[in-house]
Amino acid sequence: MNAINQSNKIQAAYYVGNKGFEISTTQAVPPAADEVRLAVGYVGICGTDMHIYHGVMDQRVAPPKVIGHEMSGTIVELGESVSGFALGDEVVVRPLDYCDDCPACDVGHSHICHNLKFMGIDSPGAFQDYWTVKARTLHKLPKSVSLKQGALIEPLAVACHDVARARLVAGEKAVIIGGGPIGQLVAQVAKSTGADVLISEVNESRLAFAKGNGILTVNPVEQNLSEFVSEWTEGKGADVVFEVSGVKQAIEAMTEIAAVRARICMVAIHSEKPAIDLFQFFWKELELLGARVYEYQDFEKAIELLANKEIDIEPYITSVSILSEINKAFEQMSGNPQGMKALVSCQAMAENSTVVGS
Amino acid sequence: MNAINQSNKIQAAYYVGNKGFEISTTQAVPPAADEVRLAVGYVGICGTDMHIYHGVMDQRVAPPKVIGHEMSGTIVELGESVSGFALGDEVVVRPLDYCDDCPACDVGHSHICHNLKFMGIDSPGAFQDYWTVKARTLHKLPKSVSLKQGALIEPLAVACHDVARARLVAGEKAVIIGGGPIGQLVAQVAKSTGADVLISEVNESRLAFAKGNGILTVNPVEQNLSEFVSEWTEGKGADVVFEVSGVKQAIEAMTEIAAVRARICMVAIHSEKPAIDLFQFFWKELELLGARVYEYQDFEKAIELLANKEIDIEPYITSVSILSEINKAFEQMSGNPQGMKALVSCQAMAENSTVVGS
Repeated sequence: MNAINQSNKIQAAYYVGNKGFEISTTQAVPPAADEVRLAVGYVGICGTDMHIYHGVMDQRVAPPKVIGHEMSGTIVELGESVSGFALGDEVVVRPLDYCDDCPACDVGHSHICHNLKFMGIDSPGAFQDYWTVKARTLHKLPKSVSLKQGALIEPLAVACHDVARARLVAGEKAVIIGGGPIGQLVAQVAKSTGADVLISEVNESRLAFAKGNGILTVNPVEQNLSEFVSEWTEGKGADVVFEVSGVKQAIEAMTEIAAVRARICMVAIHSEKPAIDLFQFFWKELELLGARVYEYQDFEKAIELLANKEIDIEPYITSVSILSEINKAFEQMSGNPQGMKALVSCQAMAENSTVVGS
Repeated sequence: MNAINQSNKIQAAYYVGNKGFEISTTQAVPPAADEVRLAVGYVGICGTDMHIYHGVMDQRVAPPKVIGHEMSGTIVELGESVSGFALGDEVVVRPLDYCDDCPACDVGHSHICHNLKFMGIDSPGAFQDYWTVKARTLHKLPKSVSLKQGALIEPLAVACHDVARARLVAGEKAVIIGGGPIGQLVAQVAKSTGADVLISEVNESRLAFAKGNGILTVNPVEQNLSEFVSEWTEGKGADVVFEVSGVKQAIEAMTEIAAVRARICMVAIHSEKPAIDLFQFFWKELELLGARVYEYQDFEKAIELLANKEIDIEPYITSVSILSEINKAFEQMSGNPQGMKALVSCQAMAENSTVVGS
């Protein structure tokens, strides 16, 4: 048995440009020897998906294309050389397609491969009811983590990667600048290490969300952030700063609030070459750490955090839509700071599948 | 016996502002319980001393003041509670006066103490024939390192600190942007670790100096630095970049030539908040490491490198003047890229000293 029966026709949501998706019926992609076919469970809408939706990445994405990369699913077909996985396994995909033959891959940094293709941006993604992917991208979900929760593993792995890059340890004090979905998850992962955590955020609903999850907060419009951090750390400054906001004021604040020898983890993508206070880097021997996506162990850590109930991920799920209503789901998330994570359910067809002999 | 006889009067060169020093006879400073009095051997003219000479640090220095901090000397008087040192010991001074009671000192980072006073800038320095300093600042010179060579230990310790901050190891490829005295020493220390080293420098005499010391060089005005580094590293990029030039072009180059996960050590002091390509920090997961002065172990390492003849420091000594000709020595080094290290000899009086009972 290497397949669970399903239709050769699949439903896929194609991003066609100009804030629009079109649902098409298309041919299923049979798995190659090293691939599996997944019945897609849930797909989260990522900030990057929103960027694509707003048309700023059309050159890279080259629509029409199926996007989406924060997902969970069930294995319904196994390529002939795939081992370690079985039909029916619930999994998540680490959506990185690396070359395995460049200076970065050679030294174990395949997640920043010179020729990295990001699945769901550079190649077809998960907003469809079946998705065929390389088996090397898979991580198994334990029974204690639902498919719905599993769709949050990818952004949680981003947060795990950021916290690992920053080498945060128990007892340290960390400031997260920016309380969007990733900032909130960074705060949760940071807290799970035993660190003391503070979120700086200007949006009241995001501040309330953080407080609701037991995170200390400050609104830098209402209170002087440097003074607040200085008092909170008894004059020492923050051991670690996560810059997750992408705004200019954060670039100024991050060096001010940092302790001597602090690590500043750059989570936000600043494409405009901001002016950085290098004198503070000299004076306090600061460290700036770029962070991009995640590694194998970050996915395993994220799964472990949910399996062990160290993080309650349910409050992050703002809404669940069905694939045919993907346009509405994107519309609702557009410019909505209240929303944390909108999921799209792609399971309708998979539920009707049955197991057949190979 | 706790003193070697010498006059109560000492000769000191006071920086008086406006590119001028005045030699004055002044009262010797008897050592407190935890201090020693040194007969100053040689004092090097540092880039910071040149900045002071040009008047840009008058507010901090508050002339008239005796400056100078790259030095060697001989112990001629011991405070009553000093142990581990003897009269006649040849030593160098780690010119950092830290408070031992701040968040940085508390965690072992006294070299970036919140209240750090730099001796020779914030408090009197070494351009005098006797200097009284805390015994905790001393490092013993072995017999195999002369007093003249010893005056180069301080800048060599800067280079040791930079290389340690960058975590450079054998087999890695390091690019040093800027071939002034510190850049050249960084290259030597980097080479001593077993790394492959390249200096990027525009000045022909500095390029020739580096070549003379067996360092690979490139002139970025004549050759495209990125292409040169790409070819040199077979497409990987530099594992470590030391920015020692302080110029804007270097800020642009440093992220371009860096390999995936490269460490960029910021040795130069950029006070003007340059625009930094944070996208490269994200894309290649780069690391920026601020570096300031040195720690205890950097001085010990620098002494070891000279004692074991792993670095030939003699070529760095451009000239030796006597204290009474300090104005001429500074004039000659001003805007002279050919010069590496000018020393000022302060030994004249010490040579006439004799040992007496306590």
